[in-house]
Amino acid sequence: MTKTDVVAMPRWDRRNLLSIEDLRPEGIRDVLDLADRLQGEPPTRATPEDFHHATVATVFFENSTRTRLSFELAAQQLSAKVLNFNADSSSVKKGESLRDTLSTIDAFGVDVIVIRHASSGVAVQASRWVNAAIINAGDGQHEHPTQALLDLFTLRQALGTQRGVMPEDLTGLRVAIVGDIRHSRVARSEVLALSAMGAHVTLVAPSPLLPTSVEGWPIEAVSSDLDHVIANTDLCYVLRIQHERMVEARLDDLDAYRHRFGLTLERAARLPEGALIMHPGPINRGVEIDSLVADAPNSLILAQVRNGVTIRAAVLSLLLGARRDEIQGAVK
Amino acid sequence: MTKTDVVAMPRWDRRNLLSIEDLRPEGIRDVLDLADRLQGEPPTRATPEDFHHATVATVFFENSTRTRLSFELAAQQLSAKVLNFNADSSSVKKGESLRDTLSTIDAFGVDVIVIRHASSGVAVQASRWVNAAIINAGDGQHEHPTQALLDLFTLRQALGTQRGVMPEDLTGLRVAIVGDIRHSRVARSEVLALSAMGAHVTLVAPSPLLPTSVEGWPIEAVSSDLDHVIANTDLCYVLRIQHERMVEARLDDLDAYRHRFGLTLERAARLPEGALIMHPGPINRGVEIDSLVADAPNSLILAQVRNGVTIRAAVLSLLLGARRDEIQGAVK
Amino acid sequence: MTKTDVVAMPRWDRRNLLSIEDLRPEGIRDVLDLADRLQGEPPTRATPEDFHHATVATVFFENSTRTRLSFELAAQQLSAKVLNFNADSSSVKKGESLRDTLSTIDAFGVDVIVIRHASSGVAVQASRWVNAAIINAGDGQHEHPTQALLDLFTLRQALGTQRGVMPEDLTGLRVAIVGDIRHSRVARSEVLALSAMGAHVTLVAPSPLLPTSVEGWPIEAVSSDLDHVIANTDLCYVLRIQHERMVEARLDDLDAYRHRFGLTLERAARLPEGALIMHPGPINRGVEIDSLVADAPNSLILAQVRNGVTIRAAVLSLLLGARRDEIQGAVK
Repeated sequence: MTKTDVVAMPRWDRRNLLSIEDLRPEGIRDVLDLADRLQGEPPTRATPEDFHHATVATVFFENSTRTRLSFELAAQQLSAKVLNFNADSSSVKKGESLRDTLSTIDAFGVDVIVIRHASSGVAVQASRWVNAAIINAGDGQHEHPTQALLDLFTLRQALGTQRGVMPEDLTGLRVAIVGDIRHSRVARSEVLALSAMGAHVTLVAPSPLLPTSVEGWPIEAVSSDLDHVIANTDLCYVLRIQHERMVEARLDDLDAYRHRFGLTLERAARLPEGALIMHPGPINRGVEIDSLVADAPNSLILAQVRNGVTIRAAVLSLLLGARRDEIQGAVK
Repeated sequence: MTKTDVVAMPRWDRRNLLSIEDLRPEGIRDVLDLADRLQGEPPTRATPEDFHHATVATVFFENSTRTRLSFELAAQQLSAKVLNFNADSSSVKKGESLRDTLSTIDAFGVDVIVIRHASSGVAVQASRWVNAAIINAGDGQHEHPTQALLDLFTLRQALGTQRGVMPEDLTGLRVAIVGDIRHSRVARSEVLALSAMGAHVTLVAPSPLLPTSVEGWPIEAVSSDLDHVIANTDLCYVLRIQHERMVEARLDDLDAYRHRFGLTLERAARLPEGALIMHPGPINRGVEIDSLVADAPNSLILAQVRNGVTIRAAVLSLLLGARRDEIQGAVK
Repeated sequence: MTKTDVVAMPRWDRRNLLSIEDLRPEGIRDVLDLADRLQGEPPTRATPEDFHHATVATVFFENSTRTRLSFELAAQQLSAKVLNFNADSSSVKKGESLRDTLSTIDAFGVDVIVIRHASSGVAVQASRWVNAAIINAGDGQHEHPTQALLDLFTLRQALGTQRGVMPEDLTGLRVAIVGDIRHSRVARSEVLALSAMGAHVTLVAPSPLLPTSVEGWPIEAVSSDLDHVIANTDLCYVLRIQHERMVEARLDDLDAYRHRFGLTLERAARLPEGALIMHPGPINRGVEIDSLVADAPNSLILAQVRNGVTIRAAVLSLLLGARRDEIQGAVK
């Protein structure tokens, strides 16, 4: 380790991962760089440290099989143990308070609690209640930081392949986030992460699917005209459309949505050369994205899934490593 | 090992844990002492023996996430493998008999079956049907022995801290068990365990929530007047109240219950100095126990959860160890 | 390894296990021989190779707790990691296509996908979509190859015990498969496996429960008269009867079925000496098989369950070993 490394110490304390804002660009780079190293290792050496005495609890009050499994695989890669707490079949149903449920899981002695909940701010609250490290795996319409991190990681890799050299940051990259931004926890984390790395973000949606206010959001522009934006977009980030939102958006049906806001084959053809396509999944083929577009060479959708495991392993490794250092420091 | 140790050999055969009565005081002390050693070890040496070839199956015909997870964590601490059998989604639904279900799980070659079932006596029956060791994790309104063991362990620790020395037993300790004793599987195990260690137990409940007969229960008294009992109570063990029982108890509502039988802040203040509070969880704040009482320094509720994992690891270790000895004996 | 071994190299490529037909007799023998070795090892050496960096995903679109747990235990025996994907609570419910779901799980980087699905042919399709090895754990009414393999293994063991020497094949063995053949995925795999090893198979069922055509099935005969067949049967393989099929079969009730097609105590007494009884489970005691028959010494039902874990460990070991060889070959 050189002197410069010491100076560049991140201000993120690595106690929790609650929000992209906590990380700052330095923290984001730490996670991404560790993920790079994890993917570079041969499969038999994938784990930089051995956490087989650590336990990671996934505590999902909303269903999300893919996110939960991604964390489970990440923990397994670190040899950590995993405990799946299923809120559906738990004492939550018997009227136990959220705080008591989390305190109980904490008292079990787990090291990390990965939490998803329908209410914004639950992850921050949880971090005040428990001793375990908290990872926010989606709280209401607020944040979903590991999604943003894996997207940055995927984007950096793809740009590195295109340019032959890994970019330092995303300065000048023109990003359009398209779809149901109002109800998306992904959108907010995405905007924060992309803009922190220097990208210019435009939100594209029918106005009922835009946030009521974007004051304070670090964005370039808001638009309801995807056709206008598309030609100046280096990354088109498509969000999932949920059927039940269509009524609120005053769009008669999914066809109408696709017609104006779907990333159709025609629209995708109007993207600049080298432009990339992302989607957090699961995708609605033929609604927000055409099937051929989702499977096109410039679509990073499966790379996002693959990198999700790596990014979560990197985050878990940093949090577990920080806890270990703290315990060893306390013992000395 | 000294000669005395050999003489003090427990009469518990360590083949199953079906009831507190099987253990006798010697068996109880063996479990508690092993739990002490498990907690004393540094985290990297938590396991006295390595059971990574052993498999523990949790077979729950009634939901109890916290008990199941506690056993799962305990097995993980011993490096044993865990198999979760969810009766909800199993061939039980296809009309398979209980015996066939258990025989199938046994034929899988698991070493321990942790069973919970709505009918009293199922654990004993199961132990006759299978080769695996059976741990009773609650059978009807009969027993829940690991709950009683973890409570004894927690109590011994707390008294040890108070007195500066670990008590040999609980001689003279005045315990009030308060609440729905009739429908509680915890109550019976608790009474047996506490009295086996020398405590004096009083049951406190409205009469519809008392057992129809307490003949043969090793208790001091039965009362329906918590206010009378409270001043002479060294340990107030509060049971969970289930809404649906209120009708049977002819109490109009939960407020009425709280008024007469809840461990309110006012009542808790009338406990003797140094008195302790326990509850098996999950708690109904503001019903059987006030929120501030549950979180008070003399409440052992979270210690109970924490110790639950340790006690279950101790029980699993004893059962798995006995099986290993038997196999090795047979090979010789 | 002798020269003969080299010549006898199986033509099965070990990339997937989709159908018994893929295996050919050589592949079947490879699986059975490896299973033999796995059972022969002392428990602490049960694993021929260590696959602790491998991940096996169970992806069940239809419930089958016993099959899923059997695979889970098998993977644990190899020290592989297990990921349970529950289609009920997944993005499948959000309308994701089967292909996208499988591609996502594949992108997680799992090595083997064990799939069960209500539609015939899904396993073959899946093998074209993903990079992971596919094991067909039941596709519609098509195949369930590991069930047939564990049955062959169990049968070979039992005949070996009877005869004092392990049989080379099943030449001349007279097998009756009795019950709902039309709707059974087991029946087809069973017929292919048994006949591949030289057995003579007769299908016995009321005609509505027979396949509409048995053209191309390698069977000896079809019968609706179990009483006629029973005296010439060395192995009576009883299938599970599902209540809802009775209407289609124009049988008023389960008693009527039992009367004509159940393996009752009376019928079982008419089996030739040394005849064996099998059933894939879960059994309906008193319907397709009498309770005393299921528990008789010549019933192999629990041995089937026990061997199921071993066979699946053998299959997983062969597939994971082939993948490892391929990776190492590619690296060289």
